[in-house]
Amino acid sequence: MIVVMKPTAKESEIAALTDELKEMGMDIQVNRGTECTVLGVLGDVYSIDTAKVEMHPSVDKVMRVSEPFKKANRKFHPNNTVIRVGNTEIGGENLTVIAGPCSVESEAQIIEVAERVKQSGATILRGGAFKPRTSPYSFQGMEFEGLALLDEARAKTGLPIISEIMSPKHVEIFENSVDIIQVGARNMQNFDLLKELGRCKTPVLLKRGLSSTIEEWLMSAEYIMAGGNENVILCERGIRTFETYTRNTLDLSAVPAIKKLSHLPVVVDPSHATGLNWMVMPLAIAAVAVGADGLMIEVHNDPKNAKCDGPQSITPDEFQDVMDKIGTVAQVAGRKLAVVR
Amino acid sequence: MIVVMKPTAKESEIAALTDELKEMGMDIQVNRGTECTVLGVLGDVYSIDTAKVEMHPSVDKVMRVSEPFKKANRKFHPNNTVIRVGNTEIGGENLTVIAGPCSVESEAQIIEVAERVKQSGATILRGGAFKPRTSPYSFQGMEFEGLALLDEARAKTGLPIISEIMSPKHVEIFENSVDIIQVGARNMQNFDLLKELGRCKTPVLLKRGLSSTIEEWLMSAEYIMAGGNENVILCERGIRTFETYTRNTLDLSAVPAIKKLSHLPVVVDPSHATGLNWMVMPLAIAAVAVGADGLMIEVHNDPKNAKCDGPQSITPDEFQDVMDKIGTVAQVAGRKLAVVR
Amino acid sequence: MIVVMKPTAKESEIAALTDELKEMGMDIQVNRGTECTVLGVLGDVYSIDTAKVEMHPSVDKVMRVSEPFKKANRKFHPNNTVIRVGNTEIGGENLTVIAGPCSVESEAQIIEVAERVKQSGATILRGGAFKPRTSPYSFQGMEFEGLALLDEARAKTGLPIISEIMSPKHVEIFENSVDIIQVGARNMQNFDLLKELGRCKTPVLLKRGLSSTIEEWLMSAEYIMAGGNENVILCERGIRTFETYTRNTLDLSAVPAIKKLSHLPVVVDPSHATGLNWMVMPLAIAAVAVGADGLMIEVHNDPKNAKCDGPQSITPDEFQDVMDKIGTVAQVAGRKLAVVR
Amino acid sequence: MIVVMKPTAKESEIAALTDELKEMGMDIQVNRGTECTVLGVLGDVYSIDTAKVEMHPSVDKVMRVSEPFKKANRKFHPNNTVIRVGNTEIGGENLTVIAGPCSVESEAQIIEVAERVKQSGATILRGGAFKPRTSPYSFQGMEFEGLALLDEARAKTGLPIISEIMSPKHVEIFENSVDIIQVGARNMQNFDLLKELGRCKTPVLLKRGLSSTIEEWLMSAEYIMAGGNENVILCERGIRTFETYTRNTLDLSAVPAIKKLSHLPVVVDPSHATGLNWMVMPLAIAAVAVGADGLMIEVHNDPKNAKCDGPQSITPDEFQDVMDKIGTVAQVAGRKLAVVR
Repeated sequence: MIVVMKPTAKESEIAALTDELKEMGMDIQVNRGTECTVLGVLGDVYSIDTAKVEMHPSVDKVMRVSEPFKKANRKFHPNNTVIRVGNTEIGGENLTVIAGPCSVESEAQIIEVAERVKQSGATILRGGAFKPRTSPYSFQGMEFEGLALLDEARAKTGLPIISEIMSPKHVEIFENSVDIIQVGARNMQNFDLLKELGRCKTPVLLKRGLSSTIEEWLMSAEYIMAGGNENVILCERGIRTFETYTRNTLDLSAVPAIKKLSHLPVVVDPSHATGLNWMVMPLAIAAVAVGADGLMIEVHNDPKNAKCDGPQSITPDEFQDVMDKIGTVAQVAGRKLAVVR
Repeated sequence: MIVVMKPTAKESEIAALTDELKEMGMDIQVNRGTECTVLGVLGDVYSIDTAKVEMHPSVDKVMRVSEPFKKANRKFHPNNTVIRVGNTEIGGENLTVIAGPCSVESEAQIIEVAERVKQSGATILRGGAFKPRTSPYSFQGMEFEGLALLDEARAKTGLPIISEIMSPKHVEIFENSVDIIQVGARNMQNFDLLKELGRCKTPVLLKRGLSSTIEEWLMSAEYIMAGGNENVILCERGIRTFETYTRNTLDLSAVPAIKKLSHLPVVVDPSHATGLNWMVMPLAIAAVAVGADGLMIEVHNDPKNAKCDGPQSITPDEFQDVMDKIGTVAQVAGRKLAVVR
Repeated sequence: MIVVMKPTAKESEIAALTDELKEMGMDIQVNRGTECTVLGVLGDVYSIDTAKVEMHPSVDKVMRVSEPFKKANRKFHPNNTVIRVGNTEIGGENLTVIAGPCSVESEAQIIEVAERVKQSGATILRGGAFKPRTSPYSFQGMEFEGLALLDEARAKTGLPIISEIMSPKHVEIFENSVDIIQVGARNMQNFDLLKELGRCKTPVLLKRGLSSTIEEWLMSAEYIMAGGNENVILCERGIRTFETYTRNTLDLSAVPAIKKLSHLPVVVDPSHATGLNWMVMPLAIAAVAVGADGLMIEVHNDPKNAKCDGPQSITPDEFQDVMDKIGTVAQVAGRKLAVVR
Repeated sequence: MIVVMKPTAKESEIAALTDELKEMGMDIQVNRGTECTVLGVLGDVYSIDTAKVEMHPSVDKVMRVSEPFKKANRKFHPNNTVIRVGNTEIGGENLTVIAGPCSVESEAQIIEVAERVKQSGATILRGGAFKPRTSPYSFQGMEFEGLALLDEARAKTGLPIISEIMSPKHVEIFENSVDIIQVGARNMQNFDLLKELGRCKTPVLLKRGLSSTIEEWLMSAEYIMAGGNENVILCERGIRTFETYTRNTLDLSAVPAIKKLSHLPVVVDPSHATGLNWMVMPLAIAAVAVGADGLMIEVHNDPKNAKCDGPQSITPDEFQDVMDKIGTVAQVAGRKLAVVR
């Protein structure tokens, strides 16, 4: 961290600030210039609130030289994190394909979808049991019954399962029932939930918040990792902009950004990003091309009658088409698709 | 709700959709034109997912005629909601002024600030005990100890207290310790928390999410109200835009919008909106001028050493200046300030 | 400007960069620390492209200490700029009130509106002759005929006139026909137009671009001023955000920001900001309260039949109401209203 | 267009509105329901200002059924527009690759870059002669001399050339010197310039504005086409959002959106979108994968010393790498690369 003092800063003020920073455990290196004094601050600068230092009346500007995240930082962990889930890996050579319905609606539905997506090459089954709905009057999910049906589908197909958690009260239950716990975009900065998830061992898929910067997203991953759970998967799902043609604006530049800043795997969800089923195919291909570790795609056997988000779901046949197209691009991007059994 | 069928829609398709909507309890009025058929849908249309209706292959467009919220809607509750808290009211003739530090830091601090802001005319004391911080390495608040200190400050000054809740696990504790429970911007769509708060009787101050539309904000209020707790106060605190000079962009047009759409009181927080203490004064005055029911202002006796958000806090003396200036504008806006004792 | 070199920077690299900056006319002050070297760059740093300096492989970060604008900067011009136009001043003690129809439609219309708004206390008459319309099929304005009708209205009422320019080809004509030349939001970065306006003496009202930062806006003012025309008035008219309830989001915090950064006058246009006539009143009052030098309000004698932007226009009677309300708030803000004759 | 009348609308009001719309040349179809009356409006509805119709006191809502653009609309022109420029085509089977420096700086520079990018497979040479710079103190381009140097480079390499126009005054000169006239993002709604370009025959590449919706972008294309010039190429170059890690946020979902809505070709500029040279490769590949008709990439032989936008330029060697990688993905997307001679 660099602190630029004002030209008018007195020696006593510089000394006071230096002492204050030393008390916080920092090493201070003072560069005295003819115009102004510049302090180089070394140590665990992550704990310093730069805004507070900037408030000193003798301070002109404060500049972070390094990112505010540590455990999620590629600088301290140059190799990609690879997370094993069931019989598959995320972040490694294989392209991860998470597919399934927005919400679990019935035994028949989830098992049919699970079998169909597995046949097409999906490696993980998704399905919402607790649903974050904008309206209290909309279908809120099958809740615990939904988790049980996902468990059945896993038993039938062997696919690991992922489902979204909505409350810190459910962490234990989720730990015992799903293979990956999903944190939705609206809970990306639900810090209490993140802390609880830091205490468990189940991998967490952390969706980017609707208006979250890449740095804030990584800071939320840092919350989970700081608690002891380093198995975090990031999921880009579109950000909120002024454009209304698509539900959100998929930010594919976030993928190379994450790859440079962090060692964590990152997957892309084109279904929520656009809210339009006919856009899933082109954006799924683009996501693989840009270097994502995987995809998360909503597949429903009867989108017209889906209890939520039908307009963005594709059918199992359309999903098969997507998988067919993705193969060659995945190769170009240096990825393998799962062998379909 | 209006459903415009495609010119190619067959009689059988129109009949099928009509039946489907009737099964959901709606009354359907069919307007047959030479060009296309238009369905008027009456009844509890709040429960209909318009996106799903739009997926019918024979449907061209679906248009909501009314807002998707009911209990928060001024249409069904023409008079302003006035919420009594301790010896003061929110939403009535008096201008509500909530003031206090970002976070409770010590007994001496919270009591000094409480006494000073009371002297200047604040009607409610704020103070954070559980703090939502972007970094896991930043100060997270004094937690339960902070709530206890707020209680002391209330005993000393008679000011009702408000503090932010971070977890559904704490609802009972907050119910028993604070006069208003605050939901922060990052938790505006933490639906599980909203549901729990719907079950208690303590008034809730609901901050607008960083990228939430006015409609989504009112839908979150609806969540709390649908659960049975109709004492919701809205708080505009700035939205996220491309502008970086201020921390957020304060959307003062949201105040007349809320006043038109809803009967709930709305207050404005210029401190979080701008993140700049020298902007608190002009934007506080503007908020009163635009018709807000109140203000929420961060006041710290020693902003330079505040444990969080110092740069946006004003001193008790500066707060006194704000209150002095606000008086006349409040009168123009038809509001009274509390009598200072 | 501060340049932080990488810890690995070689002496030869530091020397090369120092020489390069000296050749650009800068004074360089080298602070050698044990960890890294920091260069202080003094002189006309406005001409340096920081991104280019940052590309040097031995440079870690570059930080501007000062704003990139000079002539618009309050630092070098501490007193407010006051611009005289006809018999009125902008930026001084009087509150400037610019009012009139979105577009000039007929002699009868513009003269009736001009007389009515003058009676209510407007100090300047607005009226569009060349209209920037999103669709090529919409009414594009009366063009030169519109300018002639504005001239007539000025002759009748004595009010100075303002109208929007769309092309650098029209600068000479506008110079000879209007008192203030308006640059619309969509042309804020039409640099060729700005350069041409820099060569004339007529005051320019520069609207903020839909997605322009405060800094970019001041840089556009700088373009005009650098050309020799220092009579620039800024106009906040709302920025584009995700919120769709209002047409744009009025950024009232831009007013105190401009007042701190620049000596130029700033007015607020609540009509375009919200696109809703019933919001003009509360936001006009708030704009005066926040410290704006004036207002720009669309007034139409028959909004229902206005050829453009009817939904945001208020009637002359409603305008009278706005002026009545504004009086007291203007006083609080230390402003006088024009004496109505 | 559908007009929903209020339930309280009187027969006389319905008749008046019907007459008004008929006078505008529309056919009106009245659907009388028991609840409300709905008007179907047929004809050249593009010329109707919906906001104005909505202002009628007896009107509840107005809903456009079709897009507001005609000539750019795929509905009336199902086949892709293919534009021939020199010896290459845009919008056809070949992938268009436009490459070259941000600005023309010298004869040696532009000719070296032209030859290198041609060798790697570029089909069109770009080079800025008139530069839109945020600061009046930055390099503004070599202007007419720059156009002359581009002409030389075209003569040497046979590559057609594209350069950005900044003023309607230059249309004739550009018509006579470049093969494609570029309209920059900041001029996307410089309607006067668009009208002038509509009168010439040279193809126009229209960049998307920083905060322009897809619909507004197509309306700007419509301006050019309505004037008679139907050779418009769209260029997605990133939109402005809250994210600051990249300069803009590249909106790749705009590509399938444009392909669905319009018959015009669309290319993607990853250089301006991200402002980061190391992001050009992954986003260029993703753009081809998502279905773009081509790319626009900044290539500079000495980015460190580029007079503008160095940080986003790649070297000719890096450009060769991009072209090598693109080949396979282009095939998957059904595109051919130009044969390198």
